[in-house]
Amino acid sequence: MAERLDRVAVVDLGSNSFRLVVFDSRPGRWWKRTDEIYDIVRIGAGVDSKGRLSEKAMNRAVQTLGLYAHFCRATGIPKTRVRAVATSAIRDAANRDEFLTRARRESGLDVEVLSREEEACFGYLAAANSTTLRDGVVLDLGGGSMQAVCVKKRKATKLESWPLGAIRMTERFLPDEEASKKQLKALRKHVAAELESAPWLLGTGGRLVGLGGTVRNLASAAQRRAGLPSPGVQGFVLTSAALTDLEDELASRPARKRGGVPGVKPGRAEVILAGTAVLRAVLEVGGFDGIEVTEAGLREGVFLSGLLAPADPPLVDDVREASVLNLAAQYHDDLVHQEHVAHLSLRIWDSLERAGVHSADDEERQLLWAAAMLHDVGMAIDYDDHHKHSRYLILSAGLPGFSPREVALVAQIARYHRKGDPGFGELSPLMRDGDEALLRRCAALLRVVEQLERSREQIVRDVRVQARNGHVQLKLIGEGDLSVARWGARRQADVFEHAFRRELEVAA
Amino acid sequence: MAERLDRVAVVDLGSNSFRLVVFDSRPGRWWKRTDEIYDIVRIGAGVDSKGRLSEKAMNRAVQTLGLYAHFCRATGIPKTRVRAVATSAIRDAANRDEFLTRARRESGLDVEVLSREEEACFGYLAAANSTTLRDGVVLDLGGGSMQAVCVKKRKATKLESWPLGAIRMTERFLPDEEASKKQLKALRKHVAAELESAPWLLGTGGRLVGLGGTVRNLASAAQRRAGLPSPGVQGFVLTSAALTDLEDELASRPARKRGGVPGVKPGRAEVILAGTAVLRAVLEVGGFDGIEVTEAGLREGVFLSGLLAPADPPLVDDVREASVLNLAAQYHDDLVHQEHVAHLSLRIWDSLERAGVHSADDEERQLLWAAAMLHDVGMAIDYDDHHKHSRYLILSAGLPGFSPREVALVAQIARYHRKGDPGFGELSPLMRDGDEALLRRCAALLRVVEQLERSREQIVRDVRVQARNGHVQLKLIGEGDLSVARWGARRQADVFEHAFRRELEVAA
Repeated sequence: MAERLDRVAVVDLGSNSFRLVVFDSRPGRWWKRTDEIYDIVRIGAGVDSKGRLSEKAMNRAVQTLGLYAHFCRATGIPKTRVRAVATSAIRDAANRDEFLTRARRESGLDVEVLSREEEACFGYLAAANSTTLRDGVVLDLGGGSMQAVCVKKRKATKLESWPLGAIRMTERFLPDEEASKKQLKALRKHVAAELESAPWLLGTGGRLVGLGGTVRNLASAAQRRAGLPSPGVQGFVLTSAALTDLEDELASRPARKRGGVPGVKPGRAEVILAGTAVLRAVLEVGGFDGIEVTEAGLREGVFLSGLLAPADPPLVDDVREASVLNLAAQYHDDLVHQEHVAHLSLRIWDSLERAGVHSADDEERQLLWAAAMLHDVGMAIDYDDHHKHSRYLILSAGLPGFSPREVALVAQIARYHRKGDPGFGELSPLMRDGDEALLRRCAALLRVVEQLERSREQIVRDVRVQARNGHVQLKLIGEGDLSVARWGARRQADVFEHAFRRELEVAA
Repeated sequence: MAERLDRVAVVDLGSNSFRLVVFDSRPGRWWKRTDEIYDIVRIGAGVDSKGRLSEKAMNRAVQTLGLYAHFCRATGIPKTRVRAVATSAIRDAANRDEFLTRARRESGLDVEVLSREEEACFGYLAAANSTTLRDGVVLDLGGGSMQAVCVKKRKATKLESWPLGAIRMTERFLPDEEASKKQLKALRKHVAAELESAPWLLGTGGRLVGLGGTVRNLASAAQRRAGLPSPGVQGFVLTSAALTDLEDELASRPARKRGGVPGVKPGRAEVILAGTAVLRAVLEVGGFDGIEVTEAGLREGVFLSGLLAPADPPLVDDVREASVLNLAAQYHDDLVHQEHVAHLSLRIWDSLERAGVHSADDEERQLLWAAAMLHDVGMAIDYDDHHKHSRYLILSAGLPGFSPREVALVAQIARYHRKGDPGFGELSPLMRDGDEALLRRCAALLRVVEQLERSREQIVRDVRVQARNGHVQLKLIGEGDLSVARWGARRQADVFEHAFRRELEVAA
């Protein structure tokens, strides 16, 4: 049965860059960003004293939109499924109508100008659907403006927007090749003064989630400075100390060499320092220890508001669960086997905990569940080495709502659901004390359960666990011939014993 | 439009191992091995003096078949789409009918016993559809028997089968923990004497393609000893010298420790030495310099004979082309963009060759074509870093018909179709002199053409190339606004110049 594949495009006309993003989805099952074109257009640069976009910038912009329109036609996305949204630079331009008319005439695209509230709201939706934020602040720093949204119990309660974007701040405070300490201080002072319009932000501390290219680039730079492996910046926390270090490093270079800082993209080199100073000021004024980065942005907010409607606000119930199911559903037609593996794994995990065989925390239980749901996604690449492919897919896709360390743990547990001696390899720098034992426990459980589900027919319906005298006995409950399942599970006894320090017996 | 997805299972009841393999295909577009269960059943072990399968071995076999039947039911493969085939050990057993009856009664599977000719023929089909062999010999070494097929102009012309499988030879010549030089010599002498029944094999030399678990394990072991990176053994040539080294290494260990040789699977440890000696004898008697390994086997032969029917013999026209298209079609709904990128890339490549800008050989042209067709497969994983994902998918899937070095080149060209400075990293040991220049040329062409196809609408229909005075001019031919294409291609001028030592101009 062919399900409906929905394909939509969001065009984001930002002040620094334009971006066309294509999202594919099977509504109710999964969604995914599948294509993208990215151009540094910098329509917000060189606005004249009357607040008008320059002719040159408009030409670049219209040409880029023409390419996007071609692209949509060529890839079969009808105009009704393209949503083009413009933010600060275009919103605030004195000649914005002229630009919108040219854009429509020359590219055929209808550009919708978002209000400051709408822009902030889409940023909030992106953050609230890609992190576990319940209470705190969402900060979206763009090229033209910056938005902050106060979040209570996952709902947006207050919002504010300031013309404090990285391009604007660069042009106003850091126009030269070299940046002086004095200039940077003046910039930060300006930001601090502006923020007073949002008293709810001042000195509140707590959790701060950051969006936008500046935040993503800085997180990537901080990861590299710390020597951390990085399949992405999703969930990474950019600390106040790391931010100050980066400001110093960037300020020590002339503007054209700032792109040489590993992690900073060349197209962002000219405006990254101003963005860094803005963020530093926000952390200081707000009393935040750091910024938790999400890779989602305005574009995801726009897309998800459509996908999740009519939910109001359009939020997934549980971000961690939704991330795992979203990835699993992309690679499996149904999740019967995965759910049964997860079910049996958690049954045994819970029983072992009750029996005092382990005393691991609930995080471990969630990671075990996630790995059980995702252990076989790699079969989409190739049967051979599919455990390694599962690891690769999990690390590549990421799991919004989980930290980089947690994603790495899920990937490694999936990797070791068959073959090899569990370890972390180049992911070690992300790990904490005890994580190796966690990996061993979860991998051992998955290996045992995978044997129980070898026929993928759920013939082992349930498992009773008895633990005594240094032994653990699994009693398999089900119909039909359980001998192969029992024999297979027994063959994992050594792995189990190494993880739990108990001998394993399997009975039918 | 939902296309038909065909799912079939082949169950291979070999003398050493049983294996259930699931193949998915969209007939005429792609096929893929998507699932597998593998069990060391060793039904050919312990056959008594009357040539009867032992009760114990039959019990193991029937239990395993029961699991396979469960698996097929659970994964929705109807009985009519399961083909179970048995080879030497069962074929030659005095009590084979008893076994077949038990198998049918207890598992519901109808097992078809292949004749020696059929077994040889399926091996030949696997080899001829996964390598570029035109003239030479296909050798399939199993646990019970060994088949050789003489191939002329891709057709099987002669075949022979001997009871020289690795289990049989182990039981007869190497029954102890330790193997003496004398025993090994006797084994090789026995093989040489048996081979005389196929005079067409003696001293012919030329190309030898090898199938079967022994050959695959030895190839993997040889790769590791040579410190070569290996995403697989497909296309690897196991030289006569490497084989002798491995025989020495294996013979120096007691049987139970032979699985400790990296590359040798534990389940094969007991019989690998005998298999090595058999292969060594074949190389000596046949005058072959080495064995070219294919990962395809009897199972692929059985599957492909069904998929490619009514073609007779069921062979794809061009193995290299079929491999590339098979992989591309797994990840793309249509290949319009890919084919256009390939078309434009080859147009430019050919023109540059005529103009004397490069003098690369036809192999490079084929690799460029393959990389052009596959450069975007990684988008199936994630848009971000899709060039790296393309590399990963190409290396993971492999490309039958290409050598490991060639697969690595295709993967690296696809990797560098965007971003980064071309290089080989850990794949370097596979490369030859000049390969870095090859990579630079092909990657540069792909980058330029990718810009021409940025809208994926084929607006640049064709390219005229003029080369003079150290300059290369590309003249774009097409309809509509070519300015974005031109601008994008120009931005690749530095990469082009680094690869071809010519300045690049792009004109519309």
